[in-house]
Amino acid sequence: MTTTQRPEIVPTDTESIRPRGMSGSLPADDFRRLFRGHPGGVAVITAAGPAGPVALTATSVSSVSADPPLLTFSLSALSSASPAILSASTVVVHLLDADDLDLARLASTSGVDRFADTARWTRLVTGEPVYHGVRAWIRCAVVNRMDAGGSTVVAAHALQSSIDRGEAEESRALVYHNRAWHRLGKHSLIA
Amino acid sequence: MTTTQRPEIVPTDTESIRPRGMSGSLPADDFRRLFRGHPGGVAVITAAGPAGPVALTATSVSSVSADPPLLTFSLSALSSASPAILSASTVVVHLLDADDLDLARLASTSGVDRFADTARWTRLVTGEPVYHGVRAWIRCAVVNRMDAGGSTVVAAHALQSSIDRGEAEESRALVYHNRAWHRLGKHSLIA
Repeated sequence: MTTTQRPEIVPTDTESIRPRGMSGSLPADDFRRLFRGHPGGVAVITAAGPAGPVALTATSVSSVSADPPLLTFSLSALSSASPAILSASTVVVHLLDADDLDLARLASTSGVDRFADTARWTRLVTGEPVYHGVRAWIRCAVVNRMDAGGSTVVAAHALQSSIDRGEAEESRALVYHNRAWHRLGKHSLIA
Repeated sequence: MTTTQRPEIVPTDTESIRPRGMSGSLPADDFRRLFRGHPGGVAVITAAGPAGPVALTATSVSSVSADPPLLTFSLSALSSASPAILSASTVVVHLLDADDLDLARLASTSGVDRFADTARWTRLVTGEPVYHGVRAWIRCAVVNRMDAGGSTVVAAHALQSSIDRGEAEESRALVYHNRAWHRLGKHSLIA
């Protein structure tokens, strides 16, 4: 994959504030190398921005609690879609599988209109853009935000969901690892 | 794998406060089903607790920013190790690969002494317990915490790290998905 196809959420240099009183701090290149080897599930987050719909690919989506149903994700200050998502009160988190790889690439490619193909998405009655045909999506209300060195960690409450492809025998889960895409299935199962 | 081997961080019922003013809320079972299909990298988080070392397996570890080097993870109120980790000012985040599967299982199994085998771990000079032979570990200072429905999202600043197994040609990354463990490699690569 090319550099432009890297998910924007992958850590990059930001001119952000270092926590104070910290004696040692791991160099940014060491930190990147550590997490390049740490795999992540792939999601696309959308919101209705003031200037139109926005989308970005994130590997940081994680469930925090099932009751209440809460998830978190983080937003880099460098992603073009971050300001609109940070100012939105509701977002749609699309949980992707390997059949959604095109969308993962689209929403992580800089300089393209991620909503140019109008056959690919629609709006929920509540206004948020949602892409068609993904494994699953969750409409969420943002309930908390935490600053983290220029990036922002968002906690969101799940309100509504749709699952197209669930727990089929043959898993087709999508994983991003070491700048490449992987598909899980029987071939990758170890236990 | 058996039920007792499920990582404790997987969402479970908690008697926590629902965000107020929320009209609809996704049922807990629907939410669990959505995230069961969302894969995650596997980490073990340790801390020096007041009553001895503690450890838990987490699939929520995610990098947020490389400069400053910040990561986040979430802690379920139901995990036995959560109170000690929440009260610690520093933690060690072990990033596991498939060679570390035994440790992932050990630190997610209820009712066992996760430090019984004294040949398996040691203490850093700063006091935190660290397991031997893992792919990589990062000593971190906790810099922020955010409540999320009874669970807690923690932001931590990376201070020091060690990488035993880095970016080898043959990846052996470990992924937890749909209650099973998977290994990434050339066999799972799709692009």
